[in-house]
Amino acid sequence: MTLKEAQAERIEKEIWELSRFSAEGPGVTRLTYTPEHAAARETLIAAMKAASLSVREDALGNIIGRREGTDPQLPAIAVGSHFDSVRNGGMFDGTAGVVCALEAARVMLESGYVNRHPFEFIAIVEEEGARFSSGMLGGRAIAGLVADRELDSLVDEDGVSVRQAATAFGLKPGELQAAARSAADLRAFIELHIEQGPILEQEQIEIGVVTSIVGVRALRVAVKGRSDHAGTTPMHLRQDALVPAALMVREVNRFVNEIADGTVATVGHLTVAPGGGNQVPGEVDFTLDLRSPHEESLRVLIDRISVMVGEVASQAGVAADVDEFFNLSPVQLAPTMVDAVREAASALQFTHRDISSGAGHDSMFIAQVTDVGMVFVPSRAGRSHVPEEWTDFDDLRKGTEVVLRVMKALDR
Amino acid sequence: MTLKEAQAERIEKEIWELSRFSAEGPGVTRLTYTPEHAAARETLIAAMKAASLSVREDALGNIIGRREGTDPQLPAIAVGSHFDSVRNGGMFDGTAGVVCALEAARVMLESGYVNRHPFEFIAIVEEEGARFSSGMLGGRAIAGLVADRELDSLVDEDGVSVRQAATAFGLKPGELQAAARSAADLRAFIELHIEQGPILEQEQIEIGVVTSIVGVRALRVAVKGRSDHAGTTPMHLRQDALVPAALMVREVNRFVNEIADGTVATVGHLTVAPGGGNQVPGEVDFTLDLRSPHEESLRVLIDRISVMVGEVASQAGVAADVDEFFNLSPVQLAPTMVDAVREAASALQFTHRDISSGAGHDSMFIAQVTDVGMVFVPSRAGRSHVPEEWTDFDDLRKGTEVVLRVMKALDR
Repeated sequence: MTLKEAQAERIEKEIWELSRFSAEGPGVTRLTYTPEHAAARETLIAAMKAASLSVREDALGNIIGRREGTDPQLPAIAVGSHFDSVRNGGMFDGTAGVVCALEAARVMLESGYVNRHPFEFIAIVEEEGARFSSGMLGGRAIAGLVADRELDSLVDEDGVSVRQAATAFGLKPGELQAAARSAADLRAFIELHIEQGPILEQEQIEIGVVTSIVGVRALRVAVKGRSDHAGTTPMHLRQDALVPAALMVREVNRFVNEIADGTVATVGHLTVAPGGGNQVPGEVDFTLDLRSPHEESLRVLIDRISVMVGEVASQAGVAADVDEFFNLSPVQLAPTMVDAVREAASALQFTHRDISSGAGHDSMFIAQVTDVGMVFVPSRAGRSHVPEEWTDFDDLRKGTEVVLRVMKALDR
Repeated sequence: MTLKEAQAERIEKEIWELSRFSAEGPGVTRLTYTPEHAAARETLIAAMKAASLSVREDALGNIIGRREGTDPQLPAIAVGSHFDSVRNGGMFDGTAGVVCALEAARVMLESGYVNRHPFEFIAIVEEEGARFSSGMLGGRAIAGLVADRELDSLVDEDGVSVRQAATAFGLKPGELQAAARSAADLRAFIELHIEQGPILEQEQIEIGVVTSIVGVRALRVAVKGRSDHAGTTPMHLRQDALVPAALMVREVNRFVNEIADGTVATVGHLTVAPGGGNQVPGEVDFTLDLRSPHEESLRVLIDRISVMVGEVASQAGVAADVDEFFNLSPVQLAPTMVDAVREAASALQFTHRDISSGAGHDSMFIAQVTDVGMVFVPSRAGRSHVPEEWTDFDDLRKGTEVVLRVMKALDR
């Protein structure tokens, strides 16, 4: 067995091992502060200690394994990702980045690498928001962006708050401020993550050099007509809500295809009321999920959609409301980090391309306090958040090599 | 108080009285073979007896009040409608026709009218199909179109069959064949019904002369694409099922507006799966409800829709299936009956117009065994099957006058 094969096998073994810490049901379900979380935590801490890292946990349970450097005055260079999952998700989303970070720590230990900066290997909690409905809570805590009152206002479906659950888990959530990092103690953060999209696989590329994380606008559109009997109401006397809503769906699709700059728009949720086959639709509600690496594209798209919805509704004699309920600006990753990842992939002779992350990550918040770089590895068929989620273990090994090289470059 | 006012008031009183026989909740919920049905039945039988009618019930519980004529050899001339309701429906749908029939019987008694033919006043069960999911069961029984095995195969949501429920109600459902009428013993059937649509009100017309009952085709269309992450999947790599489905909805609407012959088409039920706002739709299912007085229009429309669905799906790179699950041909009412209703309305100086019924009625099945005429009265705002359903009582009185005049004309 070659060294590369041995490393890929070590990654494989650890990913499978962590996948067992799951609630019942298909795929992986590892919600924060559950017995599954506790079991994964124990395994991760043991692995960190085996890699000669000193281990501490912050207020919310982010686990930080630390390898001291030769210059204790220098800020840390960190690598990591999250280890919670969605319900019935896959075994790679988040966990892949945590395992590759641990593998990097092991390789450093085995190779006797001498680092100047402290190196940190971080396993982050509650990125998916699957328990407390607030994505990237762990990453926001690292960025100092969680307010104390959120510990009480964020509750799970049984009404248990983050504070209650974290305390019961043995943590001290009140010490939130101490969890916050800054550029003074964190020189850089690197996250390896599965792409969760089809681009790398389609183009047969090994490494995605993440340049930005898309901004997101989520809107609700409510179209109100009048429900009538489908048999007894002539066409010209109807105020069918679905016929104009269908045109709105088409127009949004046309607009975003015209922009053609990586911006995407999706109507994923659409309901028709009252919904009987023999009832003219009286109300249609649908969501609009708009994402773009370019703030300007989002702005132009939303303006165009607002005008279009008004015009289509007016022509159809129905009412329509557009309501924006989520707004997150695109994050451009630090150019020095993007360059470092690109150069590492090049030097290692991996095929690579620049890519914008279409999903949110802890990194987008940590980027508010320090330089962040992200490394994407291919997702089979672009699938994620499903049990079939898959990334080849050799691709994870390649990603780990990129991470190692970036850390060493930053350490110089 | 004039005679007309007294008659309208009598109709009003009886409609309100029957509306009380309802399960709990908004509007009227009077399902077949329930305590509410039993209470309404008792009231109707008492009213028939008070109008000097002899009363019998058939195998399924249709109540037939009979006024003998001077010539016992002649077949009966019947008038009636149904007295069941949908869940949370209104107090006019069906019941209006039953009450107007009773009012006609009372007027005949009071005026000492001497009829040659026997006259029958029929209150029909289970037209809506709200309990046993099979519309017009009572009317089909009168037409001899209910198969014995349907008594067992038709069950309510608790699995109780028509046979079990009817038997428990004190009926003899096995005597189905005796319930079947023919032209030999039923010269004609007249049904007064609320329009359930907006045409008469919009045009300020008092009486609708029903010429036909529309044919219905119900289809299901299933569009299958592929669900992907709405953030990470570029537009050109998607197989979004909703975008082509939206075009199909638009095209169906365009086609039927081009036909412009009273044909209507409705997409009333549409579901998007998986349905998350951040998930590209993988599957869209929708229903198509097509109705027309003209069989040929339905045929042409369905052919055009089938071709269109295939083309749109193919261009979008998705799959689509069209499945017809309900097919009922249009029924043209007997021209002699249409003429009789039109002439009665004219002679009474009521404004009237020919109209096609967009909803199904018991009459469409009874028309298979004898001559059938239908009289429509206006529905406020065209609303039906809702608690707000409304028809002015004076309009019901006018409808009763038309019914009376038609019966007398047929009796000559």
